[in-house]
Amino acid sequence: MIQKLMEQIRVKRAPIVVGLDPDMSFLPPQLLSEAAKSRRENIMGDDELETAAEAVWRFNKQIIDATCDLIPAVKPQVAMYEQFGVPGMVAYWKTVRYCKEKGLIVIGDVKRGDIGSTSAAYARAHLGRVVVMGHRLRVFDEDMATVNPYLGTDGIKPFIDICREEDKGIFVLVKTSNPSSGEIQDVLMQDGRPLYEHVGELVSKWGEDCMEEGYSNVGAVVGATYPEQGARLRRLMPHTFILAPGYGAQGATAKDLSAFFDENGEGAIINSSRGIIAAYTKERYSRYGAERFADASRAAVKDMLEDIRGALDGKL
Amino acid sequence: MIQKLMEQIRVKRAPIVVGLDPDMSFLPPQLLSEAAKSRRENIMGDDELETAAEAVWRFNKQIIDATCDLIPAVKPQVAMYEQFGVPGMVAYWKTVRYCKEKGLIVIGDVKRGDIGSTSAAYARAHLGRVVVMGHRLRVFDEDMATVNPYLGTDGIKPFIDICREEDKGIFVLVKTSNPSSGEIQDVLMQDGRPLYEHVGELVSKWGEDCMEEGYSNVGAVVGATYPEQGARLRRLMPHTFILAPGYGAQGATAKDLSAFFDENGEGAIINSSRGIIAAYTKERYSRYGAERFADASRAAVKDMLEDIRGALDGKL
Repeated sequence: MIQKLMEQIRVKRAPIVVGLDPDMSFLPPQLLSEAAKSRRENIMGDDELETAAEAVWRFNKQIIDATCDLIPAVKPQVAMYEQFGVPGMVAYWKTVRYCKEKGLIVIGDVKRGDIGSTSAAYARAHLGRVVVMGHRLRVFDEDMATVNPYLGTDGIKPFIDICREEDKGIFVLVKTSNPSSGEIQDVLMQDGRPLYEHVGELVSKWGEDCMEEGYSNVGAVVGATYPEQGARLRRLMPHTFILAPGYGAQGATAKDLSAFFDENGEGAIINSSRGIIAAYTKERYSRYGAERFADASRAAVKDMLEDIRGALDGKL
Repeated sequence: MIQKLMEQIRVKRAPIVVGLDPDMSFLPPQLLSEAAKSRRENIMGDDELETAAEAVWRFNKQIIDATCDLIPAVKPQVAMYEQFGVPGMVAYWKTVRYCKEKGLIVIGDVKRGDIGSTSAAYARAHLGRVVVMGHRLRVFDEDMATVNPYLGTDGIKPFIDICREEDKGIFVLVKTSNPSSGEIQDVLMQDGRPLYEHVGELVSKWGEDCMEEGYSNVGAVVGATYPEQGARLRRLMPHTFILAPGYGAQGATAKDLSAFFDENGEGAIINSSRGIIAAYTKERYSRYGAERFADASRAAVKDMLEDIRGALDGKL
């Protein structure tokens, strides 16, 4: 799968992924009223959850249609769907399926992780298949997923097994983009190094048997907001593909990001979520207005691409 | 909420929680055939996912009916539902709702954790309410949930805020029950102590403003399979209620567990999942057979209670 992702990045000259993290605070009001009119069967007893989920799906579809020729991948954040309950999970599933139909690689930002037997269930849910009465059924069926390493190897191994069986990929949290990520991840170990380096080494080792074209299907999440740590991790994990969130709304700039890439301008993909999908709410793109929110997103993708291609000095 | 849990534990003399982690490997075959006959509207296009989820719900309902007078709480593991996709999440939601109707406290074993804005969405999904067009809607609405600390304070704080607003509780992963939990959690820090002690101190601090009756609504997950670490954490976090999984199938015994409790025999609750819900598959309860699986679960709960009450030397 990592090879497919790298190919798509090359074809589109776009080491970027759009985070589909819809929030009620920036859903254009017309989508909610349209969604309210078209409500389907009511699953959880709340018409409003159905309406919100339907509006989220319509929002996503328009953004996907407006940007899919420019980008290799999307990263829906499942929390933003789970908050609308069962109807939200329907919207998540429809989003994943539609993006795949459009040729996009889907990175499910699920950050799951548990003890072995339970992680195996999550791995089946998101990347593999569940067996019911002899049928092997795909479930949410993302192409890749983010995973939390706190429980160690036996929480990760079920995902890696499925990566191999089904040609899928994972990104393990190593150094996350948020302000307080250091409280645990930066704790200094006895040898004076921070914990995230140890986690990075584990990720590198976990990925050894999943290599394709110089990179592993076991990648790492390293926040774009921590460029120094990113540079160190790039050296420490030379075969680990990096998914870097934090560009845009969280404050990272393209200059911060060049250290995440290898000498060929490969080995990393940069995520922007609100900076793209809520672009119409920013002054820079306000000329589009709420009606043309998807066009604003397309303009924001083009600007992000220009910014990142520039920082990579024509390597793309 | 922790006060409600402690009251229920006292009333039922039962510091135990039943893990509702249904797996296809031990669902009695008659439930699947009954479920296949009663299929409702098809959400995800796979009849078999609907059938599996309906069977899971029927399985849970019978176990809840057979044990709810003996136990204070249940802990459904959401991965076991998520693996059946949207229909699985319907079964999860029905299970949570039914357990609450039966007076049980529901601990959603979701192990969610993300950056601030995303953790806020998870917290709304599982403990709080989501606002849609001015309506404040409850979603999955468990009473308590498990949370992963790897992202630090800003991943946890949204859950704590909702604990205070809605009288809910969380259990933060500190030292998990699985064999490889030590790979990250036991890493020695510069002062020679293991990382999980640092995490335990964070959890204790996070819980300071959520106290009720000597314990905090911010609790900790400490695997029953690690009794020495449990004893140390009990001393380090005197006001932190401990959820201890790992009894039974994972190998911990009642003797291992006494160190998790305070001097009054309080401050901890022990989880057993397969040991209870798959009891009919064990030799000890095989006389019940697959038809009477729920009676086997009731017998296993009684045996577990006797074991744990014995280990607590009549403090209950």
